[in-house]
Amino acid sequence: MAKLFEKVALIGIGLIGSSIAREIRDKGLSASVTISTRSRETLDRAQVLGLGDRYVLSAGEAVEDADLVIVSVPVGASGAVAQAIAPHLKAGAIVTDVGSTKGSVIAQMAPHMPQGVHFIPGHPIAGTEYSGPDAGFVGLFKSRWCILTPPAGTDETAKGQLRAFWEALGSDVEEMDPEHHDKVLAIVSHLPHIIAYNIVGTADDLETVTESEVIKYSASGFRDFTRLAASDPTMWRDVCLHNKDAILEMLSRFSEDLAYLQRAIRWGDGDKLFDLFTRTRAIRRSIIQAGQDTDMVDFGRHALDAKS
Amino acid sequence: MAKLFEKVALIGIGLIGSSIAREIRDKGLSASVTISTRSRETLDRAQVLGLGDRYVLSAGEAVEDADLVIVSVPVGASGAVAQAIAPHLKAGAIVTDVGSTKGSVIAQMAPHMPQGVHFIPGHPIAGTEYSGPDAGFVGLFKSRWCILTPPAGTDETAKGQLRAFWEALGSDVEEMDPEHHDKVLAIVSHLPHIIAYNIVGTADDLETVTESEVIKYSASGFRDFTRLAASDPTMWRDVCLHNKDAILEMLSRFSEDLAYLQRAIRWGDGDKLFDLFTRTRAIRRSIIQAGQDTDMVDFGRHALDAKS
Repeated sequence: MAKLFEKVALIGIGLIGSSIAREIRDKGLSASVTISTRSRETLDRAQVLGLGDRYVLSAGEAVEDADLVIVSVPVGASGAVAQAIAPHLKAGAIVTDVGSTKGSVIAQMAPHMPQGVHFIPGHPIAGTEYSGPDAGFVGLFKSRWCILTPPAGTDETAKGQLRAFWEALGSDVEEMDPEHHDKVLAIVSHLPHIIAYNIVGTADDLETVTESEVIKYSASGFRDFTRLAASDPTMWRDVCLHNKDAILEMLSRFSEDLAYLQRAIRWGDGDKLFDLFTRTRAIRRSIIQAGQDTDMVDFGRHALDAKS
Repeated sequence: MAKLFEKVALIGIGLIGSSIAREIRDKGLSASVTISTRSRETLDRAQVLGLGDRYVLSAGEAVEDADLVIVSVPVGASGAVAQAIAPHLKAGAIVTDVGSTKGSVIAQMAPHMPQGVHFIPGHPIAGTEYSGPDAGFVGLFKSRWCILTPPAGTDETAKGQLRAFWEALGSDVEEMDPEHHDKVLAIVSHLPHIIAYNIVGTADDLETVTESEVIKYSASGFRDFTRLAASDPTMWRDVCLHNKDAILEMLSRFSEDLAYLQRAIRWGDGDKLFDLFTRTRAIRRSIIQAGQDTDMVDFGRHALDAKS
């Protein structure tokens, strides 16, 4: 594939940052890649993995001369990173991020961005339950959506370059305003993670059912939740704190609906239960048709078992 | 494998019944298999699939001369089936079921069971999001648990034969009292399904986020819930109605824990969030170590994508 940038700087090298690094290397998208992260240990690991060309602890130093800067840190750290890199950004540079919340990231980063720098927030809708530089892989962004939330008046050329970059990684790029992004993600991502963490916590706390029983019989449904509940705690703490309003709204709706369902169970109202349980099947079919999940039984676990 | 029975009767031929039929055929566990189901269409389908040796609409007719009768119907239909088969059971026959609730099934079936028949309720902890006779497959029960809840004084020989049958299907057999079974399943299976149905319903009802957005961006977490929420509505309506007390208890605990989490989000208490989000990781590790789930990224979806 054609080279898109002379120098890319990656600030943060976890699951997302290291997947981006691997994609750039795999596809030759930049002449050079500089990697920066606060932890010496993680930086050394990135170097052992050969994820870039230069490795520096200072984010400011990393972004010097960079055409594209990608900030991939827990959203709570965005403001500090913006402040650290601002004085070192070259005129014309594109600065983007991969954070799961956009309103809060913009509020933290935009005020630090110098004139002449193109700040275009972004969010690749991709991830796994694993974290850290070893967890990244080529293909993570393939056929997944990447949402950009460019402010009004964003330079079209810069936006086109960033779009081309994500498309080179196999993503479909979509634009959205940040407020709407935060509502959409609250329901499709943040609420599911919170619910998953919560149910795993509830199960862990029971006195009458032992933890070993929960583990033994988890294939009957529970295990599906444990994948999301194994996600990176720092990332998810920050998401909860930085998309508070939208998350609280979705939690209220969820709890209201659950109370309705609970009442139907208590009073033996089978028709209400049957109606809901029928309606929800259609959404899964649509997700499979849209290519956003596999139609293989059990997410394909059986197929994998059979091969092993 | 050695033949274990002369004649098995399967009452109900959905996902579980038809998987059992395929296992018997595959492993030669019975000289003959008679299949019965209330729907003519389903019975014809079972015949086209060659799942048994005889196909009859009448459950009573099906169980005549059977050594082993396996009732695989929605738990709400257990009583009617017991009543229908009772006069036709031969002395010494073993009658079992595969229902997800045990207290209610025993209350419905036990009063009808004649003297000299061995009624040993059971529950294979296995299933998928698909239903009907076409959904079954050989291997569904492999390395999964099967819980038996034999009443006090159950004939040891009969119990041993039923145990040997499930072991021939690859299951690990465990005994439990019915009340405890219903509590364990309420947390590992019933609550997860109810929560999954509920969140999919909540997402479906939003005014500010469209259904097509929910579908497009579902890979960010939501899609994991849609698999459980695509399960058989009749089965799950009956489970909710027939394990009411244990389910209501688990729902109360879940909602209480969620309120605590919601409050931490509202007041910005990051430490409480971080603590829970860290604790839940350990359970997933234990489930993987126990062989109850794959450690492959995203349940192995990526690996399957890569092969396709």
